[in-house]
Amino acid sequence: MSSAVSERLLVQEVAPRDGLQIEPVWVPTGDKVALIDALSAAGFTRIEAGAFVSPKAIPALRDGDEVFRRIRRKAGVIYAALIPNLKGAQRALAAGADELNMVMSASQTHNLANMRMTCEASLDGFAGVVAHTAQTAQTVQTGVTLNGTVATAFGCPFEGKIDEDRVLSIVEHYLRLDIGAITLADTTGMANPRQVARLVRRVLAMLPASALTLHFHNTRGLGLVNVMAAFEAGARRFDASLGGLGGCPFAPGASGNICTEDLVNLCDEIGIETGIDLPALMALTRGLPALLGHDVPGQVAKAGRNCDLHPAPPSMPDAG
Amino acid sequence: MSSAVSERLLVQEVAPRDGLQIEPVWVPTGDKVALIDALSAAGFTRIEAGAFVSPKAIPALRDGDEVFRRIRRKAGVIYAALIPNLKGAQRALAAGADELNMVMSASQTHNLANMRMTCEASLDGFAGVVAHTAQTAQTVQTGVTLNGTVATAFGCPFEGKIDEDRVLSIVEHYLRLDIGAITLADTTGMANPRQVARLVRRVLAMLPASALTLHFHNTRGLGLVNVMAAFEAGARRFDASLGGLGGCPFAPGASGNICTEDLVNLCDEIGIETGIDLPALMALTRGLPALLGHDVPGQVAKAGRNCDLHPAPPSMPDAG
Repeated sequence: MSSAVSERLLVQEVAPRDGLQIEPVWVPTGDKVALIDALSAAGFTRIEAGAFVSPKAIPALRDGDEVFRRIRRKAGVIYAALIPNLKGAQRALAAGADELNMVMSASQTHNLANMRMTCEASLDGFAGVVAHTAQTAQTVQTGVTLNGTVATAFGCPFEGKIDEDRVLSIVEHYLRLDIGAITLADTTGMANPRQVARLVRRVLAMLPASALTLHFHNTRGLGLVNVMAAFEAGARRFDASLGGLGGCPFAPGASGNICTEDLVNLCDEIGIETGIDLPALMALTRGLPALLGHDVPGQVAKAGRNCDLHPAPPSMPDAG
Repeated sequence: MSSAVSERLLVQEVAPRDGLQIEPVWVPTGDKVALIDALSAAGFTRIEAGAFVSPKAIPALRDGDEVFRRIRRKAGVIYAALIPNLKGAQRALAAGADELNMVMSASQTHNLANMRMTCEASLDGFAGVVAHTAQTAQTVQTGVTLNGTVATAFGCPFEGKIDEDRVLSIVEHYLRLDIGAITLADTTGMANPRQVARLVRRVLAMLPASALTLHFHNTRGLGLVNVMAAFEAGARRFDASLGGLGGCPFAPGASGNICTEDLVNLCDEIGIETGIDLPALMALTRGLPALLGHDVPGQVAKAGRNCDLHPAPPSMPDAG
């Protein structure tokens, strides 16, 4: 089971952003803050804590500024914010985000639906974000990092397969803009493990594993299959969402990010270190239905860990 | 995507037995027969069509004799029956089963709970089944095959990890009894992919891939991860259940076999041939809630295949 070389996998928790953004109920700011603080206490070193987008587009996250101000900053934890444009970046920097995550889709059709602009307009806008962040860093802030996400990198629900060269050219464009870390997102759960292995290998020829995040959805039950394929191909950073919360509001049929505790359970079982306290995580997930008013898809919080045993039936003869 | 060597994976559909056995509603015999006939029409060449066990233990399957008599036999399809003992074997042979699937647990505690006897007593009983089947074949039947299942091969909910040497010794015992095909079953979803790869490699040193079936449960979201690990290690035969129906009545927390259409969708996406008509399968699964009175866990029947696209939102500007 244990291998000679210690293996680690970095999990970035995205439930406070990607999980909550499509919830129809309003999660009070205090509950969001408590969730994020509980996540940092459970061992996460990267948490996507909010988004700075139009409150009309995503009303569930309209309190991002207050959330970032109120969370208890734990040393060593990076609190990231999703931003669509310069205005979002300005708000995120003012709120004290440690990392700005810019998002655009590889699919033109999906970017128009999701961002209301062309891919080219998204990239032009990101150049402005980079310039503004550099300027701000010189004056009041230090150490803010930038991440560029390629959404629908493995397929678009409207266009279908996305040409891999197109994905690579967007990655290149991000890197040329001095956006040094990249996320490949399977926004609507269309990736398969062989495609994932191939694309991960190609992108890892362009940047180190420490700068590449994979974001999978479990729409068709392939989320953890794709994680294992990406891991075997060299990827070491993965987004995941507590309880499997989340999805994409503009992607028909999409139903949930990969579930953090299901991923951590897998890692624990095969000896890959995550640094995350799985029982603490399962307890958090068991509180989600009361917070959100519905069941969540994650399985380990319901079934228990692989290693959680049960008493033998009492009526049974002794096994000897 | 396509590899030079054509890859095939054989799916044995187990919903009529493993899926229905724990359902609290009575599925009328005619509906069971219609389901099995629809499965053979969808391309399955192996279907576990029933069990010959005590009607008190599993009342849902008490009509096994009638089911086997009424199904429309499609040429080339093997209709298997699960049997716990000689009496079950006699009933299954009389009903015309093509294959007898004997089951015992590698875990002594689980075998006592599930079969009400020790592992040793199970194996002794199987020797009697083999002798009876050989005798019957000489007189009235030909071509009945035997399969031996090792349940809890990857872990027991009462005992925890199962020693791999113990699993291999049971496989050896089956082979010595002239039971030429083996199923390794992860009865309560405790397997992990590295354990699976290791055990599959060891068992494939004892028998050909055509004689080894893997039976995984998706209790903790690892079902398809384990399929891929087993496939990469050389396994080519897998049990799966329509809609992800099934579980183990004596295993606390267990919640469902791997889902057939989710597995076939994965295979279709990565170019592994199964010979199964996925849209036909999805239509069958969409009929299960009406038959059983509850939702089923399978995801592809809800989300659609990876390749099923959607129209772009109508309010959107043209993507050009």
